[in-house]
Amino acid sequence: MADAVYPRLTVIGCGLIGSSVVRAARVHGAAQTIVVCDSSPAVRQRVVELGIADEVIADPAEAVKDADLVLLATPPGSIGAVARACASGLKPGATLTDVGSVKGSVGEAMAEAAPKGVFVIPGHPIAGTELSGPDAGFPELFHDRWTILTPPASTDPAFAKAVDRLTAFWEAMGARVELMDERHHDLVLAVTSHLPHLIAYNIVGTAADLEEVTQAEVMKYSAGGFRDFTRIAASDPVMWRDVFILNKDAVLEILARFTEDLQALSRAIRWGEADKLEELFTRTRQIRTGVIALGQESAEPNFGRDRGR
Amino acid sequence: MADAVYPRLTVIGCGLIGSSVVRAARVHGAAQTIVVCDSSPAVRQRVVELGIADEVIADPAEAVKDADLVLLATPPGSIGAVARACASGLKPGATLTDVGSVKGSVGEAMAEAAPKGVFVIPGHPIAGTELSGPDAGFPELFHDRWTILTPPASTDPAFAKAVDRLTAFWEAMGARVELMDERHHDLVLAVTSHLPHLIAYNIVGTAADLEEVTQAEVMKYSAGGFRDFTRIAASDPVMWRDVFILNKDAVLEILARFTEDLQALSRAIRWGEADKLEELFTRTRQIRTGVIALGQESAEPNFGRDRGR
Repeated sequence: MADAVYPRLTVIGCGLIGSSVVRAARVHGAAQTIVVCDSSPAVRQRVVELGIADEVIADPAEAVKDADLVLLATPPGSIGAVARACASGLKPGATLTDVGSVKGSVGEAMAEAAPKGVFVIPGHPIAGTELSGPDAGFPELFHDRWTILTPPASTDPAFAKAVDRLTAFWEAMGARVELMDERHHDLVLAVTSHLPHLIAYNIVGTAADLEEVTQAEVMKYSAGGFRDFTRIAASDPVMWRDVFILNKDAVLEILARFTEDLQALSRAIRWGEADKLEELFTRTRQIRTGVIALGQESAEPNFGRDRGR
Repeated sequence: MADAVYPRLTVIGCGLIGSSVVRAARVHGAAQTIVVCDSSPAVRQRVVELGIADEVIADPAEAVKDADLVLLATPPGSIGAVARACASGLKPGATLTDVGSVKGSVGEAMAEAAPKGVFVIPGHPIAGTELSGPDAGFPELFHDRWTILTPPASTDPAFAKAVDRLTAFWEAMGARVELMDERHHDLVLAVTSHLPHLIAYNIVGTAADLEEVTQAEVMKYSAGGFRDFTRIAASDPVMWRDVFILNKDAVLEILARFTEDLQALSRAIRWGEADKLEELFTRTRQIRTGVIALGQESAEPNFGRDRGR
C-alpha cells in the first residue's frame, strides 16, 4: 500500500457520509490513524461495535488533537458550532474541511472559527443515498463521483499544497475532484440537487394529503414514476432542512424559474397546446442522452486522473 | 404449457409496451398466434427481423380478423382513430382493450368505435421504461406489476367472462390485476404517474434554460438528485403529450394542489421556518417506509393470485 495521504484523520459526525469517509479512507489507505468524534453516545457506541475507527472520542477539541485532516460531516447548520468546539485542539498546518451540500455560508463559518495556521478548505462529495447513520456508510460511496472543493483564492504556496493534498485524499478514495468558486457551487447544486429534493419532498407531501386517493393507493401504484420521488424524499430531514435554510437565495431563485416554467406548462395543458408539450418533452429527452454519455464516461476508473491541477 | 388464454392475439402499435406484450404473451403462452400491426413500415420491418410475431400486417381491419383479443398499444391520443380503423374487421365475441395511461376518454373512444358484440375493456399496465420502440420491449416488463382494468358496469354474464379472461391473460404474463372505476383510475394515475412526469419534464427544461449554469455542469453533477428526473423526462414525448391533454382535468387539479404546497414550502424557506421544513421532510420519509413494505410484498411471485374476483 502507498503511503497514507494523511497520517491522522479525524471525522466529526459519523452518519452516512462521515462513516463512508472513515471506511473509504481505511480501505484505500488514505489515512493511517482514523479518529471518530460524534455528539451522540449511541453513534459512538455503534462505531466502536462496527470497529471502523482506531479511536472514538466524545470531545471535539480532544478528538482533533494531532490530526492532519479534520473532516466535519455533521448537518450543514451545525458546522459553525462544531468548528468552534474543536478549534482549540487544531494543530497549526492541519487542514479543516467538511462535506456539506452548501458551501458559501458553511465555508465562512469554518473560516471564522479556525485558528491561524489551519488551512480551511470547504468540500462537498456529490454522493449519497436516502439512508442515514453509521451503518448506512460504505467504502465505495465516492467511487467515480465528483467531489467539489471550494478553497478561497490564495497566493500562499503552503495553502496550494494543502489543497493538492486534500485533492489527493479524495482521489485516493476513488473520487474525481473539481475546484470551484463557492457561490457558483451553491447555484449549481441548487439546480442539480436542492431543487430536485425540494420538489420530491413537496410532491410526496401533496400526495399524502389527498382525500380522494388513499395513501395505500399512492404506494400501490407508485411504479408509474412516483416511487423515484419517495426515495429522494426519504433523505435525511435535518440535513435537508439546513441545506434549504443555508442556500436560501440560490434555491429560491431556481425555484422561481421552475414555478414560472410550470405555470406555462399548466397553461399549455389547459389550452390543449399539444405542440408546445411535445416540443418540451422532445427537448428534455435529448438532455438525457448527454447525461448518459457523461455517466458512461464517469464509470471508467480514474483514480489519480485530474491530478496536479 | 397450459392452454393459451386467447387462440389469436392482435397487437396494434409495437413500441415498448406493445412489443413487451407480444414477447410476454409468447414466453408465457398467453396467446397461441400473435399478430402485429403497426402504421410504420420501419417498425413492421423491425418486428419481422426480430421474429417476435407470427404475422405482421399493415392494415388494421385485416390484422384484427379472427382475433380473440385486440390490444391497442398506440399513443392514447390515437386510440379512437385506430379503433375506428380496425372496427370493421373485429369479430363478434372478440375483446378490445388498450394499454394507455388515461382511461376515461380513451375508453369512450373505443366504445364508440367498436361494433356490437365486441367486449370493450380498457386496461393499463403500470410498467414501463424511458425507452421506446420495438427493440425496447422485454417479456418480464409486467412481472409483479399492477395492471388496472376499467370495465364499464355491466350485468351481462358474457361480459363478466370476458373481463375474467382478460384478467387471466395479464396474470399469465406475471401481472397483478385490479379492477377500478375509470375516473378514479385517472385521478390515481394523475398523482402517481402524470404529475411526477410533468414535474420531471419541467425541472429538466428549467435547468436546460439557465444561463449561469451550463448544461454540461448540470449533467456532470446530476448525481445529487437531478439524474433521476432526467430519466423520467426521457419518456416518450408523443405518448406523454397525449396523456396530459386527455387527462387534463385530473392533472390540473393535482397540479394546483402541488403548486399551492410548493408556495407554502417556498415561503417557509424564505422566512427560515426550519421547524416546518423538518416536519414535512420527516413525514415524507415515513411514507417511503410504506412504499418499500409494499414493494417487497409485490416482489413475491403471484401468478394466478387475485383471480376469480
